[in-house]
Amino acid sequence: MNLKNFFSPAAIAVVGASQNPKKVGRQVLDNIILSGYQGNIYAINLKEKAIASLPTFSDLGKLPIKDWSSLLVMIVIPAAFVLKEIEKCGQLGIKNIIIISAGFKESDVEGKKREEELKLLINKYSLNILGPNCLGFINNFNHFNASFSHRANINSKVALISQSGAIGSSVLDWLKAQNLGLGYFISLGNKAGLNENDFLEYLSKDKNVDSIILYLEEMADGEKFMQIVSKIAPEKTVAILKAGTSVGGQALAQSHTGALAGESIAAKIGLKRAGTILIDNLNDLFNLIIILRSPLVVKNKLSNKLQIITNAGGLAVLSADAAAEQGINLVNNLDLLGNASPEDYELAIKKSLSVDKEANVLILLSPQLATEPLKVAEVVAKLAKQNPKRLIMACFLGGKTIAPAREHLISEGLPFFSYPEGAIKALGSLIKNAAYLSQFTPYNLINHELAVKTEEKKDYDYLDLFTLLSKYKINSVKTNKYDPFIKEELVFPLVLKAVGPNFIHKSDKEAIVLNLNNFAELKTAAEKLQQKYKTAFLNKNNYLVTQPQIKDKLELILGFKQDASFGPILLFGLGGIYAEILKEVRLTIADLDETRALEFIKESVFFPILNGARGGIKYDINKLAKVLVNFSRLANQERQIKEFDINPLFLTPKEILSGDVRAF
Amino acid sequence: MNLKNFFSPAAIAVVGASQNPKKVGRQVLDNIILSGYQGNIYAINLKEKAIASLPTFSDLGKLPIKDWSSLLVMIVIPAAFVLKEIEKCGQLGIKNIIIISAGFKESDVEGKKREEELKLLINKYSLNILGPNCLGFINNFNHFNASFSHRANINSKVALISQSGAIGSSVLDWLKAQNLGLGYFISLGNKAGLNENDFLEYLSKDKNVDSIILYLEEMADGEKFMQIVSKIAPEKTVAILKAGTSVGGQALAQSHTGALAGESIAAKIGLKRAGTILIDNLNDLFNLIIILRSPLVVKNKLSNKLQIITNAGGLAVLSADAAAEQGINLVNNLDLLGNASPEDYELAIKKSLSVDKEANVLILLSPQLATEPLKVAEVVAKLAKQNPKRLIMACFLGGKTIAPAREHLISEGLPFFSYPEGAIKALGSLIKNAAYLSQFTPYNLINHELAVKTEEKKDYDYLDLFTLLSKYKINSVKTNKYDPFIKEELVFPLVLKAVGPNFIHKSDKEAIVLNLNNFAELKTAAEKLQQKYKTAFLNKNNYLVTQPQIKDKLELILGFKQDASFGPILLFGLGGIYAEILKEVRLTIADLDETRALEFIKESVFFPILNGARGGIKYDINKLAKVLVNFSRLANQERQIKEFDINPLFLTPKEILSGDVRAF
Repeated sequence: MNLKNFFSPAAIAVVGASQNPKKVGRQVLDNIILSGYQGNIYAINLKEKAIASLPTFSDLGKLPIKDWSSLLVMIVIPAAFVLKEIEKCGQLGIKNIIIISAGFKESDVEGKKREEELKLLINKYSLNILGPNCLGFINNFNHFNASFSHRANINSKVALISQSGAIGSSVLDWLKAQNLGLGYFISLGNKAGLNENDFLEYLSKDKNVDSIILYLEEMADGEKFMQIVSKIAPEKTVAILKAGTSVGGQALAQSHTGALAGESIAAKIGLKRAGTILIDNLNDLFNLIIILRSPLVVKNKLSNKLQIITNAGGLAVLSADAAAEQGINLVNNLDLLGNASPEDYELAIKKSLSVDKEANVLILLSPQLATEPLKVAEVVAKLAKQNPKRLIMACFLGGKTIAPAREHLISEGLPFFSYPEGAIKALGSLIKNAAYLSQFTPYNLINHELAVKTEEKKDYDYLDLFTLLSKYKINSVKTNKYDPFIKEELVFPLVLKAVGPNFIHKSDKEAIVLNLNNFAELKTAAEKLQQKYKTAFLNKNNYLVTQPQIKDKLELILGFKQDASFGPILLFGLGGIYAEILKEVRLTIADLDETRALEFIKESVFFPILNGARGGIKYDINKLAKVLVNFSRLANQERQIKEFDINPLFLTPKEILSGDVRAF
Repeated sequence: MNLKNFFSPAAIAVVGASQNPKKVGRQVLDNIILSGYQGNIYAINLKEKAIASLPTFSDLGKLPIKDWSSLLVMIVIPAAFVLKEIEKCGQLGIKNIIIISAGFKESDVEGKKREEELKLLINKYSLNILGPNCLGFINNFNHFNASFSHRANINSKVALISQSGAIGSSVLDWLKAQNLGLGYFISLGNKAGLNENDFLEYLSKDKNVDSIILYLEEMADGEKFMQIVSKIAPEKTVAILKAGTSVGGQALAQSHTGALAGESIAAKIGLKRAGTILIDNLNDLFNLIIILRSPLVVKNKLSNKLQIITNAGGLAVLSADAAAEQGINLVNNLDLLGNASPEDYELAIKKSLSVDKEANVLILLSPQLATEPLKVAEVVAKLAKQNPKRLIMACFLGGKTIAPAREHLISEGLPFFSYPEGAIKALGSLIKNAAYLSQFTPYNLINHELAVKTEEKKDYDYLDLFTLLSKYKINSVKTNKYDPFIKEELVFPLVLKAVGPNFIHKSDKEAIVLNLNNFAELKTAAEKLQQKYKTAFLNKNNYLVTQPQIKDKLELILGFKQDASFGPILLFGLGGIYAEILKEVRLTIADLDETRALEFIKESVFFPILNGARGGIKYDINKLAKVLVNFSRLANQERQIKEFDINPLFLTPKEILSGDVRAF
């Protein structure tokens, strides 16, 4: 998908252009003109003859255009007329379209139907469509505002992609008040055509863009997102405020272990896997825009050290707390006391910059009696200019007293924050992200198409699942179908289990008999179970199996669940009460290689238990990592299986064996 | 301690009053005059004759005053002269003093000495001294600004106590810019005399004050704080931003179980026990001031329901996430869409208010194309006035576009927030606090004096500790000193242990022998140990003991540590690897009664394990609660013991027995 003509078209036509300055059809035109767009601008209106002194036509088809693919069409007409216009675009060979109009799936039944028809047209003509129900986009690198927001003409290397137009316009309004701006602003709207993944792919190639911030309510395709972003992330910062909770993620955690807290877990681990910064709230989103404006916030080159210069001890204490929380190394802390003069600040900043040659610097100021905020701001700005390779941030607390200082610092390009904790959290999120990305491999997308297609769940045969595991080199406890006429091969003591669709929700106590020491005991136990579950055994998918009793074992749990958006998610942890009650389990995106599997195991709180703590057994962690990798492969290859649990997975000094399985 | 004359003195004298408008000695005078203070104001200056048209004297002693205890003296002279002036105050019978001057313990060695001498004078003359090194105070209920901050003359029912003058002046500056204010502002400074506990006690009795917000870096006395605040909290909201980490709390958690993460733990649980709201950062502190301004935020009457009215779906989604995080029940969510008019808002708010008669209402607005923020604000303010019993909050996102609307809403007294998440977090913290306080008993301060006096640690005799436990009705495993000549009373199998000061840090493997089945085995094992630790046994405090081997047990850990500020803190949890590796332990302030002990046990993640989960044993939780209460009593009574661990505490189907002890 090539979006070059979409963002930098040779010409633009506004369908629904209007003479009336109150109408979107006119505001959009004005924005295009005022932004300094250099191509041809055409107004399309059935009735009016000349709009805003532009060449005005009654119909798209009448435009004096040869290469229709280099034209961008903005549609600003009532929803009922949109589809006809899109059909016309398709026939003319127009590819690039923004549908500003609302009245689609966000509105009512009719709107939903309209959007489905729109999608058919998009496929039919291979259209690049932004929207419907969106604000359009702004490309400040090309001086091109193709939106109905007039609020952003200050450039920066930050791109913002917002699913919500309202959040987008709030951000733009707020940025304008702060004299801040964006390089790109893209309002996604309903995502009938182009979605965040298309724009991420486009922006990943735009060298003007250093960082991309997203506000999303639903992911178009989590796996594709991980694939695209995990390639971008080592170069450009990608941060996302993901609103709403992923029901899939919740269900995932719950289905495995009963009551694990599950709040948008799949999305959280998927977005982290992709290498994004997860933004907690709107306030943090603004703070990220502020810090990412600085050209000094360069991926992977950010020091994790911070020096604080302040005229208020209290602010330093709060900052130290915040730095500790973020894992930032506070290397220096100069408290100039309440009567600090601009000269004191100058001396202290110079000293800080020379004492440590790479640490980031945060200048704090509280408006006290002798404080001259503007003069301090001038000193700070001057020193920032003299030290263009050092990240110098400022946070002056207060209201009107510090307002001129704030304006000066922002106009000089310094990251300026309202609260020290906000500044430090923004810095911390960048540092942690860089550290995470330093050991990183892109997301490995396998059998994604299969995932999308197979939605049905089915019960799998118990013994077949062990066979499937062995295909993926995962060993199991030797499991035999119980046969009253075959005594051979049985090693006592053993365990007798009833398995099959009717026994999935039975508790261990009801359908398992332990400690069977000889064939006679086994036979008696089997007959008891057969009698007890007479009806169930009429179904041949229910049957009895025997397994040897495993000694000296640690019980683990290993499972996966296919998330609708982020693909298979792996669950791993201690078994039994540890999983059920103490929640000693961890989740990860199931594209593990051996390195990451090992890291994943070692990061677990319970790792010391696997590693021989308190004189216990030191299990073979490398072997365990291989089991995780193999199970991961299974999860990706066998997308038709929606959920799979190995519980318990026995860890013994010699081998790793799946003890019980269920899948559907 | 009576602070009535302190906050509402009949007269005030400023020592160090000045003609020079740039000097604190003049600004302080101006603030008193401008605030509308009704009593006599005296200027004290050695040289100048008439300052600001006030009666001016060369010496405090020359003031025409009869009742010196009704006078408040503000001292604004260089530190070197302060003590002489305080001595003079003491001799005259002056009780109430603010020392603005810096140059005390916050400065240098000489300053530290000066502060120690000041404390002697405070005791000698029973003085009420605020400061030194503070801004003074503002009492807006009495139109009295005895501070050098001129920034706050807007009243509210919120009092702010700040240890840091700089944080205080930042807050006041910010409040002024927002047209917000405070009822009281108290700048604590060095707390040589009066501290937060004194002011909390005073404010608890002031009916004008609804809520108290504190910024503290160190607690004057955590136990007294808990005692005072736990009495206030059910009536008035008390919220605290505690900066800095409590080293004691960290050490506590670490000493018990090795590596438990411990960040200001003692302070956190102590402040929670007191019934305060713990404020995370400055931004949250501001948001609390905003919401607490509303007269509708009445303790214990706050509904936990929230209705949201918005013109932006995105803001509703973010709000829903935030509400879920806060445990707020979102009962209604009206999305009026981007083109919402003021009339739409009016209808929606009216509908909301009538659909649910108690839910709180949050009005969200994003400045979109057709939005008229000011008109919407007028509608909101009007409806808030018409519904004086409903909490209506507003959050309009953006910059200049929404500024007039914001100003209008604030001037009309509505809580107005910059971000929806901030509004919801503030509301949530109040709701959770009210819920917590609904089942609450004040902190029970026992033997506090003893705690302050006994600082030394000592090793306690092993068997004596069991005796001490039995004094507090905590049973122990029958423990006998090993004697090779006494066979009677021994029940095999048993355990042999070396105990005493040299064995505290020995691992179990080295100094314990298990599974001794008869006297011969015991004797052999004892001789081996005696041989191995020959030197240690030269010290009679080291000896061997025997204990029966306990079967069918669950191992718990129970301990306490005396925190320097918050008194004894109890630690309780699962024993063994659960405590060491999985951190399945909990801390609480050690003033448990049976109700709270039971609640504390039941709130534990591991409670199901004690309660018979997965077909396990259901232990006697009431009996366990009693053990916790008794151990709690011990911790409070025996303040000379700084740390005490029962590890393991055996939980058996029949009884609860301490198995091993250490204390110092």
